[in-house]
Parts: sequence; structure tokens; C-alpha cells
Amino acid sequence: MITIIILGAGNVAKHIYTAFTNQKSVRIIQCYNRKGVSIHKDQKKENITKNLRDLIEADIYIIAVSDDAISEVSDNLPFTNKLIVHTSGSVPMLSMNSVNRRGVFYPLQTFSINSTIKYSTIPFCIEAEKDTDRLLLKKLALILSPKVYDISSEQRSVLHVAAVFVNNFTNHLFSVGNQICSENEIPFEILHPLIQETAKKITVLDPDKAQTGPAIRKDNKTLQRHLHILKKDSQKELYTLLTQSIQSNYGKKL
Amino acid sequence: MITIIILGAGNVAKHIYTAFTNQKSVRIIQCYNRKGVSIHKDQKKENITKNLRDLIEADIYIIAVSDDAISEVSDNLPFTNKLIVHTSGSVPMLSMNSVNRRGVFYPLQTFSINSTIKYSTIPFCIEAEKDTDRLLLKKLALILSPKVYDISSEQRSVLHVAAVFVNNFTNHLFSVGNQICSENEIPFEILHPLIQETAKKITVLDPDKAQTGPAIRKDNKTLQRHLHILKKDSQKELYTLLTQSIQSNYGKKL
Ligand SMILES: NC(=O)c1ccc[n+]([C@@H]2O[C@H](COP(=O)([O-])OP(=O)(O)OC[C@H]3O[C@@H](n4cnc5c(N)ncnc54)[C@H](OP(=O)(O)O)[C@@H]3O)[C@@H](O)[C@H]2O)c1
Ligand SMILES: NC(=O)c1ccc[n+]([C@@H]2O[C@H](COP(=O)([O-])OP(=O)(O)OC[C@H]3O[C@@H](n4cnc5c(N)ncnc54)[C@H](OP(=O)(O)O)[C@@H]3O)[C@@H](O)[C@H]2O)c1
Repeated sequence: MITIIILGAGNVAKHIYTAFTNQKSVRIIQCYNRKGVSIHKDQKKENITKNLRDLIEADIYIIAVSDDAISEVSDNLPFTNKLIVHTSGSVPMLSMNSVNRRGVFYPLQTFSINSTIKYSTIPFCIEAEKDTDRLLLKKLALILSPKVYDISSEQRSVLHVAAVFVNNFTNHLFSVGNQICSENEIPFEILHPLIQETAKKITVLDPDKAQTGPAIRKDNKTLQRHLHILKKDSQKELYTLLTQSIQSNYGKKL
Repeated sequence: MITIIILGAGNVAKHIYTAFTNQKSVRIIQCYNRKGVSIHKDQKKENITKNLRDLIEADIYIIAVSDDAISEVSDNLPFTNKLIVHTSGSVPMLSMNSVNRRGVFYPLQTFSINSTIKYSTIPFCIEAEKDTDRLLLKKLALILSPKVYDISSEQRSVLHVAAVFVNNFTNHLFSVGNQICSENEIPFEILHPLIQETAKKITVLDPDKAQTGPAIRKDNKTLQRHLHILKKDSQKELYTLLTQSIQSNYGKKL
């Protein structure tokens, strides 16, 4: 039985609570957040605290608070030599206070309050100062998902940049597609199946091999017509730079 | 019973053949392509021709050839006043020869030879000069999918630009993510679930509302660190422009 304490009351804290709550080999024995609120409907009041000084003993303390607050929360813990981990993609492990044994338990997925996530598909990125701690974190992650990776703080920061491209920037391209549609009274939902298929394709085919469209074909007539159709300068700029980027990427590989 | 003839032997011709082959209310009575090859394992030899002059009578002639060849093929048809449609997202309906009744039967999805597609999820964009033809095309599309839209040539060309953003450009961002990972010996598959979730999210949430990340948070510390981590100038340029685009998009809405 692994005992854990969750610190924080945001998206990740709530999802971690939900994910572990019905697992026999894990017990969430306490939760801390600065407002002392409940983060799950099944939670007992006496297991919630808003005072770090009230924290009891556990195998793992999971600090799921905003990136900027991780170091501060770790500084204010009233104990030493315990295993403390944060859940961030971008904060170095060593930014937490060294009086405790440090680690990282980073679920590489985008969480929002109302979304239901299949936890078994989430990749967990694990790191720890001590090897025994790393193995314990691995064991904890494996309870939820078979996809557990040893990732150093340096690799994690790189992974975070890559995630910005495939998640934040991709979502922005969906926004631009949505804009273009609504400027022309076309329902954006027409594009939903194409979007799903685009995402699905790269799980079976390298994205370089899946590349199609006027840019890679160097179809200049279509490229010019598209630039003409686009109304906003910001849309034209994105179209031009992404086209150039595809062409130089592909050019190199010939 | 709707009788159709398919012209072309590429991805779309093959997928249309497969999609209709087991439908009771449709019969593919002949196929044309310039090499006279079979496009489906169940096809009878006598129903394949490489001569446009041998084309027999049908309700609908579906011209599924390369964009550049659509007009030429329509010019060389040996009959008049029949319903001819192309399957292109970017070619205007009126670019086909006016001796026949013209229409468009555009399946808005990305097809490749080896992918299996659930045809019932494909949106069909329909257009025709005559209203009776439009209704027949609608009937034909509805056999495969409930998602059938009346889309003018002008709207279709706009839709094609939007599709470049959400499909071609998005796939390129996946390529960049892949590059960043492999430069740092991180398996790209770690990002696959995030990519699937990013695509899934916009089917339930407007992409503007789904936007997250350092750009929209104006988290300059992270933005600077990310630019520092990126090695290639082309990656830095994309990062900078996409960040600006997100910030100006969001700025306007506040
Ligand atoms: N959301 C995701 O998709 C995702 C995915 C993977 C990893 N992560 C990481 O997981 C961690 C938590 O993210 P999140 O999305 O759950 O954030 P969130 O929903 O914004 O919640 C942040 C939580 O941190 C608490 N907090 C902020 N400053 C604090 C302080 N000084 N002392 C104590 N608590 C403080 C907040 O408390 P109040 O409620 O009192 O404001 C809130 O409960 C971050 O490191 C993030 O990078 C997030
Ligand atoms: N692929 C997609 O994802 C997709 C999606 C929606 C719509 N579309 C549209 O569907 C149409 C076909 O695309 P596709 O992907 O099937 O293309 P494709 O796989 O490249 O096949 C093109 C076909 O056109 C034939 N062709 C080219 N020039 C010709 C000519 N002068 N005379 C007769 N046949 C000629 C080719 O014949 P050979 O085999 O002899 O070269 C080939 O069979 C295009 O209008 C395209 O825009 C494609």
C-alpha cells in the first residue's frame, strides 16, 4: 500500500485524486490546499487541511500547485527527508527545497476540470534524486498507466517546448480555421473529422511522411490563390511562414 | 437505384469504389482510367475502360482525377447533358465543360491508399447547377454519411484554405515536435496522447476557449526559456510568430 498526500486544488490535483481514489494499492490519506476546500465528492472533511503544519506522514507528497508556487510550497513543508514530487512539465526537480528527497511525477496530458480522461493512456514522466524513490514513483504511475518514462529535468524542459508546438500551437491553428470558416458562414464542424484524422494518422505514420498539401507540392498557383482568399494580415503571415517552413524542411530531405 | 461511373484510379477513386461497392441502392456500372487498371479486387474486367469514348450511360459520372486534369477530362467526354461531378476541394464547378450538367461531390477528408476510413463520418460538400441534380447528389452522399452540406464553389475554396491550416499546417507542427524530440533522444510517442486529446477537445469546446499555454498566459519567462531551448532558427521563427498570433487573437477578445 502506497500512501500519498495531494497538495493543491486545481485541475491536476483533482484528476490525480479521481484517478487514484478507486485503486486498492494506493491510499490518499490527506489533502492540503490553501483554502481548505474539498477536491472530490467522496472526500472526508477531516482529511483536508489548509495548514502545511498539519501534514501527516505519507510515502509520497504530490505538490500539484501552479509552477510559480512549487518552490515556495516545498520551502514551507514542516518536515525533512520525505519524498516530495511536483507534477510540472517545466519546473526543474532541483528547484524544490533540498531538505527533502525530491522527484517529479509529470502526467503528460492536457487536463481541464470537466474533461474525462482515460488515465491508462497518459504517459507519466518520472524523475527522482534517489533510485529507490524513482522505483516507487514508477510503481505508482504503473498503477494508472503502462506508459511510464524516465525523463531528466533537461529532457522534460525540451518535451515541454515540443508539447507547446503539438498542443498550444496546433489548437491555435484550429482557432484560425474556425475564424476563416465563420467569416464565410461555413460551420466549423465540417472540419472536425479532418482534424481527428490528421491527429490519428501520425500514430501510424511519421508526420514527415504524412505531410500533404500545396506547400509540399510547391503548387504556387494554389498558394497564391489561398493568400488572396485570406483576409487578415496575421492569417497571411502564418500561411506564408508555415509554407516556407514545410518547403525548407522537405527540401532538405530530398 | 443510382448508377455511377468512376473516372480516375487514385486514392479518392478507390475509396469511393470501396464505399459504394456494398450499397444496395447504388451500382458502379463502369470505371475509366487512362491505364485501364482495376481499382478494386472485386471489379470485373469488362467494366474497366481506358477510352473515354467507350463510356456507357449512367446517372452520375464522378471525375476523381488530379485537380489539373479535371477540366481536360470533362472536355473529352463523348456525350452532352449528363450529370458530371468532380471531387475536388479547390476546383470551381464551372471549370468543367458546360456541354454537360455540372456538379461537385467533395468528400472533406484526407485519404491515403492504406488508411481505412469510417465513411459514415465523412462530411460531403455538394454543389450542382440544377436543383434536381443537387438533390440526387445529396441522396448519393446520404447513403454513406449523414453529414451532407450545400457548399458553393466560393465557400469550398475558403474551406480548402481552412483545411490547409487544420490539416497540412497542423501536421507540420507535429513534424517540428518530432524533430525537437529526436534531437534530444526523447521518443515522439510520448506526445501521441496529448495530440489525440488536443484534437478531441475542440469537438466539445470552441478552440478559442481551449487555448492554453505560455503564450496566452503571457508567461514571458517561459517564452524566453523556450526560445533558448530551440536550436534551429526556423523553429524559433515559428515559435515567435505563433506566440504573437495567439497573443493578438486573445488580446482582441478581452
Ligand atoms: N493543467 C494541465 O493540463 C497540466 C498538465 C500537466 C501538468 N500540469 C502541472 O500541474 C501543476 C498544477 O497545474 P493545474 O493545471 O492543476 O493548475 P491550476 O488548475 O491552475 O491549479 C493551481 C493550484 O495551485 C494552487 N496554488 C497556487 N499558488 C499557490 C500557493 N502559493 N500556495 C498554495 N497553493 C497555491 C492554487 O490554489 P488556489 O485554488 O487557492 O488558487 C490551485 O489549487 C502545475 O505545475 C502544472 O504545470 C498541468
Ligand atoms: N487524396 C485526398 O485526400 C483527397 C481528398 C478529397 C478530395 N480529393 C480530390 O480528389 C481528386 C483525386 O485526388 P486523389 O487523391 O485520388 O489523386 P491521386 O491519388 O493522385 O490520383 C490521381 C488520378 O488522376 C489521374 N489523372 C491525372 N491526370 C490525368 C489525365 N490527364 N487524364 C486522366 N487521368 C488523369 C491519375 O491517373 P494515373 O494513375 O494514370 O496517373 C490518377 O488515377 C482531386 O481532385 C483531389 O483534389 C483528394
